[in-house]
Amino acid sequence: MSSEFSLIERYFAQPAAALHASTPQGKEPKATLGIGDDCALLAPRRGMQLAISTDMLVSGRHFFPNVSPWKLGYKALAVNLSDLAAMGARPRAFTLGLSMPDANDRWLESFSEGLFHIARQFDCELIGGDTTSGPHVSICITVFGDVPQNRALRRDSAHPGDDIWVSGTLGNARAGLGIRRGEWSMDGGAAESAMIQSLEQPEPRVALGIALRGVAHAALDISDGLAGDLVHILKRSKVRASVNIDLVPRSEAVAAMPAEMQLQCVLAGGDDYELCFTAPAEARPKIERIAKRLKVPLTCIGTIHNLAAPGDTPAIDWRGNNGPVLFRVKGFDHFHAD
Amino acid sequence: MSSEFSLIERYFAQPAAALHASTPQGKEPKATLGIGDDCALLAPRRGMQLAISTDMLVSGRHFFPNVSPWKLGYKALAVNLSDLAAMGARPRAFTLGLSMPDANDRWLESFSEGLFHIARQFDCELIGGDTTSGPHVSICITVFGDVPQNRALRRDSAHPGDDIWVSGTLGNARAGLGIRRGEWSMDGGAAESAMIQSLEQPEPRVALGIALRGVAHAALDISDGLAGDLVHILKRSKVRASVNIDLVPRSEAVAAMPAEMQLQCVLAGGDDYELCFTAPAEARPKIERIAKRLKVPLTCIGTIHNLAAPGDTPAIDWRGNNGPVLFRVKGFDHFHAD
Repeated sequence: MSSEFSLIERYFAQPAAALHASTPQGKEPKATLGIGDDCALLAPRRGMQLAISTDMLVSGRHFFPNVSPWKLGYKALAVNLSDLAAMGARPRAFTLGLSMPDANDRWLESFSEGLFHIARQFDCELIGGDTTSGPHVSICITVFGDVPQNRALRRDSAHPGDDIWVSGTLGNARAGLGIRRGEWSMDGGAAESAMIQSLEQPEPRVALGIALRGVAHAALDISDGLAGDLVHILKRSKVRASVNIDLVPRSEAVAAMPAEMQLQCVLAGGDDYELCFTAPAEARPKIERIAKRLKVPLTCIGTIHNLAAPGDTPAIDWRGNNGPVLFRVKGFDHFHAD
Repeated sequence: MSSEFSLIERYFAQPAAALHASTPQGKEPKATLGIGDDCALLAPRRGMQLAISTDMLVSGRHFFPNVSPWKLGYKALAVNLSDLAAMGARPRAFTLGLSMPDANDRWLESFSEGLFHIARQFDCELIGGDTTSGPHVSICITVFGDVPQNRALRRDSAHPGDDIWVSGTLGNARAGLGIRRGEWSMDGGAAESAMIQSLEQPEPRVALGIALRGVAHAALDISDGLAGDLVHILKRSKVRASVNIDLVPRSEAVAAMPAEMQLQCVLAGGDDYELCFTAPAEARPKIERIAKRLKVPLTCIGTIHNLAAPGDTPAIDWRGNNGPVLFRVKGFDHFHAD
């Protein structure tokens, strides 16, 4: 944490102090030691473990080079907070690695404002960083959250018979990417704005993740698309899934898109950062109460099954209201396509 | 931690498993959950805090684009372990963010071998990562270590009257950089190899940092050069320093360089990753025993003083055996120059 000391101090240490200043009186500061030493010092709260996640975002790959720096700062932390949400962890702190072509004051100011906007919203403190010049913008955030011992929502805990749930609606972010790329256009009105908002300012489902501790079996966040991400749960839990594509929730605007394009957005579009989780059938009333309390739509879209035989492939059987459906992902063509 | 899942699994998850396999029986695995979920899970050991540091390394800025990937993997973790050493923390785990132009199998294999070589050496487990394609190689490592509550070696704890110490010798890495850049040449023999070794495979002073808990007052690692780094301690501790440049330890090969170039290497050269620390005079016998036990030369080079007045600048007064010396850093022209 040595280089570009002055930049870190100027743009990133001060808002962190402001974060402290807005902390209710009597509440302990979260990190014992933050920016300005060789290391930050952090301990999980009593009975907790730290959940830790890292994401690397590269210009042209994960965001358009001309994206608003405010929105970039916001989204860079949002996608990491989404990983905490997927574990049922409560945000504590993060570190920032940032390389950029030149130390542009306006860019840095706007980037840090977007970053600290969401940091304050989720009470997540910047405790260390390293900024450096480099040929293009790349951002590496490592985020830390508290989760009680043995209560984390893992990917390997889905049981046969579990319901499969998703939060919110799927496909909006991919539709927004299509608009930004000029692949299609909407009316330019509210629906279009909502799609771009989903792409550029996703809302990490932190409160939902915490509410699902002890209720859900397995969980993850949908960053690369339902079709690809759900398979991560299936592989690690050694199970199959059947999913009714007509039940997968989508916005009215996405539902109005042509059928094939619509399915690609809903089932294979990334960047929505909704949660997908499994839970036993007896948890349905609890889950419905959580949905109501948090005002987050939660929709049951399918069921977890045993593998037919030990050598069977963990995979998704897609069906619709009228029977089996053949669905193939047409490559991962969204921002997380690596 | 979602993208490039297969790359992380292929090159980085397996050696981490091997790391576990070589763990002595009965010793707990360090992370509860590692690569393959949304987050890793980690808790400090009883009575400990986590020391956390992040470094971002960019091709052309912190390393030559044609550097051996093995050495790059080694050094990327070494510089982070050095930050832990500077806090007196014992390495536990790290996360890796990696972007590179194309997923070159040979490059990745060699990079991961260098990385895991030093990871095994310091018992530091890879618990998560994110690899992605990008226009050039950049590496962001976040490292975690255990340090007992209130025993961390901070930068703000130097006291007037403290001795100032450095480990090893200074200037070798900067001299090695000069050779790599063609600024000067040596005999091509052992001295030259040693300098390049210092540049490319610095040895983090982890055992020394741990031994200095409760002995040293303030400490940091010298990544940007003694002249710049010591000032970080002075500013945060609100003190001045006097340093005898004739006492600053250097290798025989560096001592044979022309006087002015030699001083720039020794006092302003970065990348040596030795520790600089302050300690009360009564700790001298203890420090000499530590040096002997760890076989690391420790040299007292100066003294911490009070500021002359509250508005006085925390700065270094350079002197030699024959009286005051005027020394100016000629810009930070080494790899950490940002």
